Amino acid sequence: MEFSSRLLAQAVDEMSQLPGIGKRTALRLVLHLLKQPGEQTGRLTHALKALREEVKFCKSCHNISDVGLCEICSNPKRDAGLVCVVEDVRDVMAIENTGQYKGLYHVLGGKISPMEGIGPQDLTIASLVEKARKGQIGELIFALSSTMEGDTTNFYMYKQLEPLNIKTSTIARGIAVGDELEYADEVTLGRSILNRIPFEGSLRAS
Amino acid sequence: MEFSSRLLAQAVDEMSQLPGIGKRTALRLVLHLLKQPGEQTGRLTHALKALREEVKFCKSCHNISDVGLCEICSNPKRDAGLVCVVEDVRDVMAIENTGQYKGLYHVLGGKISPMEGIGPQDLTIASLVEKARKGQIGELIFALSSTMEGDTTNFYMYKQLEPLNIKTSTIARGIAVGDELEYADEVTLGRSILNRIPFEGSLRAS
Repeated sequence: MEFSSRLLAQAVDEMSQLPGIGKRTALRLVLHLLKQPGEQTGRLTHALKALREEVKFCKSCHNISDVGLCEICSNPKRDAGLVCVVEDVRDVMAIENTGQYKGLYHVLGGKISPMEGIGPQDLTIASLVEKARKGQIGELIFALSSTMEGDTTNFYMYKQLEPLNIKTSTIARGIAVGDELEYADEVTLGRSILNRIPFEGSLRAS
Repeated sequence: MEFSSRLLAQAVDEMSQLPGIGKRTALRLVLHLLKQPGEQTGRLTHALKALREEVKFCKSCHNISDVGLCEICSNPKRDAGLVCVVEDVRDVMAIENTGQYKGLYHVLGGKISPMEGIGPQDLTIASLVEKARKGQIGELIFALSSTMEGDTTNFYMYKQLEPLNIKTSTIARGIAVGDELEYADEVTLGRSILNRIPFEGSLRAS
């Protein structure tokens, strides 16, 4: 694309570095900002800069937090012995939204992915093992996405934690609530039969 | 959505003010920036700020430009008497890409749209009429989108320019090159029959 202005070209170029934003979308967004009052651009750039420069992570669970120990970790009403391992802050938000979980979290910051050059040392696995070694964890729940990378990460953590003899579980895979059986993929349906639960157990959740 | 950090909440909030970007997408973009080196956020915010604060418009055609008179308007090889009226800089780029047009442009900055509260006084129509009055325009081409707003704007401009007796035309509406007739909508197909062109004329373009 040829732009009529160097300033415009630079703004579009930087905007299109964001994932899922191509040059055309970037141009649309940038032109939108130009039509709005200058304060909107000011607020946007200030908020992004402030976040990037001042972001802090909870020293215990590694979630994004404004203070040293996040609200969840410092809440005495939560079960400190139960730890749910998730990939990032979005998963914490999703699980908190269910209102079903009263334990703490451990945010890995990603999944092991040789394709993207992410190894165990890039994640907070060492800190998780350290917590477990100190006897701070009674039960661990692995709640990573059900992908090759998620399963690899689960297995790696499991192997690291095995000698410590901690009760570990992984979230149930199965047919989503409200889904029709006939439209489920065969792997999910197969797993949901293998990992069937006693009928009385299924009544608890509802 | 409940965020674990005020800084994160603000960044997501500002990001989601952009058109077509919801809270979830905004969160994904903001988390992406957090994972990248700080310079990327620095370059993005700097480019947006610089564009918003220093943007200039060509004093003749009102296109975005770094200098007082844009490259197209100041190019002596272009036909200064032929002016193509477009909505915004994207249309200039699209027409320039065809390589078929050697005249100048006039960028309106939008279309007349009572729904969005945009009237003729918000566009650069007065400046277009002024140029025409000074005798700087030999022929005008209206190249607005083929919507209700586009047609309204075309008609308004036509009425303003009528007393000046300038040759005006609008870009051809018809079946897109490469399209199958059976999939064309009936309005387009109907117009393309009404506005049929002599067969010899159709050979010029290819």
